[in-house]
Amino acid sequence: MVLDLFQDVATLTAQLMDIESVSGNEGPLADAVEAALRPLGHLEVLRNGDAIMARTALGRAERVILAGHLDTVPLPGTPGSRGTVPSSWDGGVLYGRGATDMKGGVAVQLALAATLTEPTKDITFVFYDHEEVEASKSGLGRLVREHADWLGADFGILLEPTNGTVEGGCNGTSRFHATTRGKAAHSARAWMGENAIHAAAPILERLAAYEPATVTVDGLDYRESLNAVKIHGGTAGNVIPDACVVEINYRFAPDKTPDDAEAHVRALLAGFDVVRTDAAAGARPGLNAPAAASFVAAVGAEPKPKYGWTDVARLSELGIPAVNFGPGDALLAHTDNEHVAAEDIRTCLAALTRWLG
Amino acid sequence: MVLDLFQDVATLTAQLMDIESVSGNEGPLADAVEAALRPLGHLEVLRNGDAIMARTALGRAERVILAGHLDTVPLPGTPGSRGTVPSSWDGGVLYGRGATDMKGGVAVQLALAATLTEPTKDITFVFYDHEEVEASKSGLGRLVREHADWLGADFGILLEPTNGTVEGGCNGTSRFHATTRGKAAHSARAWMGENAIHAAAPILERLAAYEPATVTVDGLDYRESLNAVKIHGGTAGNVIPDACVVEINYRFAPDKTPDDAEAHVRALLAGFDVVRTDAAAGARPGLNAPAAASFVAAVGAEPKPKYGWTDVARLSELGIPAVNFGPGDALLAHTDNEHVAAEDIRTCLAALTRWLG
Repeated sequence: MVLDLFQDVATLTAQLMDIESVSGNEGPLADAVEAALRPLGHLEVLRNGDAIMARTALGRAERVILAGHLDTVPLPGTPGSRGTVPSSWDGGVLYGRGATDMKGGVAVQLALAATLTEPTKDITFVFYDHEEVEASKSGLGRLVREHADWLGADFGILLEPTNGTVEGGCNGTSRFHATTRGKAAHSARAWMGENAIHAAAPILERLAAYEPATVTVDGLDYRESLNAVKIHGGTAGNVIPDACVVEINYRFAPDKTPDDAEAHVRALLAGFDVVRTDAAAGARPGLNAPAAASFVAAVGAEPKPKYGWTDVARLSELGIPAVNFGPGDALLAHTDNEHVAAEDIRTCLAALTRWLG
Repeated sequence: MVLDLFQDVATLTAQLMDIESVSGNEGPLADAVEAALRPLGHLEVLRNGDAIMARTALGRAERVILAGHLDTVPLPGTPGSRGTVPSSWDGGVLYGRGATDMKGGVAVQLALAATLTEPTKDITFVFYDHEEVEASKSGLGRLVREHADWLGADFGILLEPTNGTVEGGCNGTSRFHATTRGKAAHSARAWMGENAIHAAAPILERLAAYEPATVTVDGLDYRESLNAVKIHGGTAGNVIPDACVVEINYRFAPDKTPDDAEAHVRALLAGFDVVRTDAAAGARPGLNAPAAASFVAAVGAEPKPKYGWTDVARLSELGIPAVNFGPGDALLAHTDNEHVAAEDIRTCLAALTRWLG
């Protein structure tokens, strides 16, 4: 399929959605994107696996990265779902897998790549694979490792869905196992054992009583959360349980490192065996960087904090202040009836064209 | 294999142990038991599946049931275990699967069946299958349904291991599911959900704080216990859990019915969704029945309560007071190195011969 990057950006979105690209199957879409970008004389194009980068080299004072992922989560399993492939229209609303997450954003990137032959800032467009799966497979992570020279910039925009507002930075996330141990015994002689599930009561009490903080970072209010996400204990209906594990997920504001977050959880659960099993740093919104400030002014909407972890954290690790800004409602992402309003995609394109044109 | 019921009862025990009879494979042992009993002219013999009953009909004033199961739990999985098949001797100690649970008891039954041609009380010997598996498969339960006429008696003795003491009655046992419900949400936006695991904190608190009672029934002290035996909740590391289930096991004294026990648990966990999933009534020790009193006097040991649920409860349901009395330590049952002292089997046989001879 040949992509027409100059057509209406919502129609282009539908065209992108009709090329199924569930994580691991980004090849056909990456081929189409590469084929559409190669003829554009003002761009240098690089392909790496199923990721593509394209950049201007106009010697501008500032460089901006516009990034988006090509993959989607799997197609809906429920018969009759409209958030599937191919896409379909209902009035001005486009239904299908990737509508919000994030082929609308990718269409905006492609339209800007085609039409902004002389942007006011140099631009690096990044289209990557494997965002919706484990972090170790991330196409953006691979590009950072293999083409770090392409990933220098003063500011980054990730076109993840934010309903057209600017969402700055992101919370970090860490997981922990809090484990209690007891002594197994037949439950008919319970006094010969020690009940590890009963011993977990104070862990749940402290989590239930915990009041999560809201932390202001670079002017944005990050709302934290700290939750048991899983619990399991016990082996049989007639045995006093000798172990109970509470899995905890802490979403922490970007004023904290993962080590800070771990210290916080350890203090809350003092006296218990706590092991960190996973950690990803957050990202400060960086809205005080000049490029960020001018972008926010151009968009004209009040910036908000991003609660979920996104790839802006990878850009942040490279020292690039970055925000999320894209069409569609993030709450519709991954749902069976994923959809986006055509007008939202056009509005997003217009805002970026205004700022970069 | 031909069983010699007149040989030393410990040697007979070893012979029984050498015929493997894990639940479901009782056939060969049942065949051997039947073949050994049929020639005894003073007994009427009945076979039902892999259960055998044999009884005297001397017109005595009282009738006693002596019952034991033929099956064992599976053989030990650990290499080098001595609690396996065939049996082995170590001085005066007999090792092998079934040593305590309960081929020593079965050997005592068989020796009594062979030698007591004119007992002072009529005796019904019951050898049954499928005791070590789910209650619905119980051979004794099947006999109760299909041959209730054979199961009338004034007193019952189950030759389960009690280390030679008399253990009266048994605690009842019930299981419950206490379930909390919440509302799923992405854990990055926890405030949009409700955490069902946190909501289970008061359940664990109440169980941890609960002081189990000791209840005196017919002169014996029954120690109760009430425990969480399993807990599970949560579906994924980034989702606020929408359900948590605590599985609870209540071992209650035989002064309570299963309905009494349920009311007790419901009162403790008032405000929570509690469902009873399983129940088995306990059995009063019935030591004030005349046959029981004379038996306890003949054995000469202080009676104790039985904490675990045993088939005495099935006899109790038929209106037959019953106790556990058999050779071997119940704590060795089901272990990898199950064993019994030969002398304990002989002592048990001597006590019953004294009382019934």
